[in-house]
Amino acid sequence: MKILIIGTGGTIASKMTEVGYKSQLGVDEILEATGIDREGIDTIDLMNMDSTLIQPQDWVTMARAVYEHREDYDGIVITHGTDTLAYTSSMLSFMLRNIDLPVVLTGSMLPASEPNSDAPRNLRAAIRFAKEGVPGIFIAFMDKIMLGNRASKVHSHGLNAFQSINYPDVAYVKGEDVLYRISPEELKIGRGRPLLDTDINPDVAYMRLIPGLKPEFLKSVFESGCKGIVIEGYGVGGLPYRNRNVLSTVAEISRRIPVVMTTQAVYGGVDMSRYEVGRKALEAGVIPAGDMTKEATVTKLMWALGHANSVEDVRKIMTTNLAGELGDPGY
Amino acid sequence: MKILIIGTGGTIASKMTEVGYKSQLGVDEILEATGIDREGIDTIDLMNMDSTLIQPQDWVTMARAVYEHREDYDGIVITHGTDTLAYTSSMLSFMLRNIDLPVVLTGSMLPASEPNSDAPRNLRAAIRFAKEGVPGIFIAFMDKIMLGNRASKVHSHGLNAFQSINYPDVAYVKGEDVLYRISPEELKIGRGRPLLDTDINPDVAYMRLIPGLKPEFLKSVFESGCKGIVIEGYGVGGLPYRNRNVLSTVAEISRRIPVVMTTQAVYGGVDMSRYEVGRKALEAGVIPAGDMTKEATVTKLMWALGHANSVEDVRKIMTTNLAGELGDPGY
Repeated sequence: MKILIIGTGGTIASKMTEVGYKSQLGVDEILEATGIDREGIDTIDLMNMDSTLIQPQDWVTMARAVYEHREDYDGIVITHGTDTLAYTSSMLSFMLRNIDLPVVLTGSMLPASEPNSDAPRNLRAAIRFAKEGVPGIFIAFMDKIMLGNRASKVHSHGLNAFQSINYPDVAYVKGEDVLYRISPEELKIGRGRPLLDTDINPDVAYMRLIPGLKPEFLKSVFESGCKGIVIEGYGVGGLPYRNRNVLSTVAEISRRIPVVMTTQAVYGGVDMSRYEVGRKALEAGVIPAGDMTKEATVTKLMWALGHANSVEDVRKIMTTNLAGELGDPGY
Repeated sequence: MKILIIGTGGTIASKMTEVGYKSQLGVDEILEATGIDREGIDTIDLMNMDSTLIQPQDWVTMARAVYEHREDYDGIVITHGTDTLAYTSSMLSFMLRNIDLPVVLTGSMLPASEPNSDAPRNLRAAIRFAKEGVPGIFIAFMDKIMLGNRASKVHSHGLNAFQSINYPDVAYVKGEDVLYRISPEELKIGRGRPLLDTDINPDVAYMRLIPGLKPEFLKSVFESGCKGIVIEGYGVGGLPYRNRNVLSTVAEISRRIPVVMTTQAVYGGVDMSRYEVGRKALEAGVIPAGDMTKEATVTKLMWALGHANSVEDVRKIMTTNLAGELGDPGY
């Protein structure tokens, strides 16, 4: 078994400095700090930064590295900061459709260099699952294996920081055992020739609907060059049309650029056919995000914008399952 | 015991129509549909709409109604749509500081007019807790009593839709029993002369930080007349300064209007002193939302803008506990 670990930085690679925690260790140093057996493991330090600093072009760099090395290894592990981990894993699932080996992202909430760190536990689980031969993009955290485009960071500092949203965990790692919750055949990720498909347009804005939101704010974002907007609506989705009329402004904008609706609720996704306020939003041209995570919604929209010539093209991509990210389209 | 129920609409008051569910029933009809004993209960239909349509001026109307009727009743129940319920309960806690009777908001996920609705259960719990004499603004949902400015809607359509975030439930209602999780004396809500204090400025925008966010989008919102911005950052809070430099733009904006940082994680709040990216954001003038809910953060910012003459005034209000909404200020 040959495993490649690609390092990108994050808390797992951090040390305390005068200016606070800062990403510094390479993968070899992380392996040493966590006491993990190096046999059969190669390492690459691709980048080294706090994941707050990760930008869309870094996803292209990561996707290329995975694609280039995929034939030389049985599985690939990526260490990454937790803050944008779920964005990266979501985007990799779109950029690396039909990937033919396990790609397991992990990180830790406490630096590998500190006592009681969760780094050994998470990294061991990631390596263990990378040896299973199940193709796809996954996140390993606190013994849970989650589909990479179905998980979110739900706790800002607790160790059990990631959760699979609107979707079961794929498996649990218990020492050398892997206990599946879904059989790998059930994962609705793409099968076929592996693709490296990195065309994206990251000029996306994401705004929360709040009572009294001025339609002018949405309009100003659109006018400043935004190519796609995600609105995080209430509950199952809908737009207000009383007093400050967000509905009519969105109807205008969505003729020019895609406007996608997700929910500010944690669980349950959007179902815009249920209430009058939701039906009106659908009629205004809003694209429902269905049961996708927020991170999958944002990255899929960036990816769709790189693959579409019209709002209708984007609508089609957003409401079609590409890599397991979407079960129920929400309309 | 005299209880007043104030109706504002929502799913609890909805009926299926040709255009989807729509808010229609008055409180008397809701009481009839839920089979709740009318003895000692007065009702007012203050407004009747889907809570997606609730606007900031409606909060003033509700606060006034509570304030005017408070001396005539032992407790007040407000029925409300679930979508913006947590915004309303948060804002009422700021507009009605030191309120001297229980004000319990509730609603339901299924219309009172339908079989198996959760309306009877929720409304009964709200009425029961309103009779306890514990002053404050609360939410009753699925037998849980939560502090009104500590709860969020976490499920878009499941019955157990509300959760107290970063704070325990106040109590559980079991039939006629109320089981406390916090003794009422421990609630850090204001004590003193009851106030009706409704000055707000609702011109607030709420944007999620996403990888590659163009600083121009934040700038355009500021330039279109926004008086306060909430940025929903990653994890414990921080701003990117590599490539698309959000940090330097926020440093500019936050000299003119308050920029508040909350987290896109569900739990744990922000602690901006921990990482370099957080410390830099604090130095740039960002105001941490600490462990407040998103709904409390937004409504408190609107309220602070109505009570402040400078960014520093707003900072002071946002980082001080007013009505139980804030435990840890996050820096």
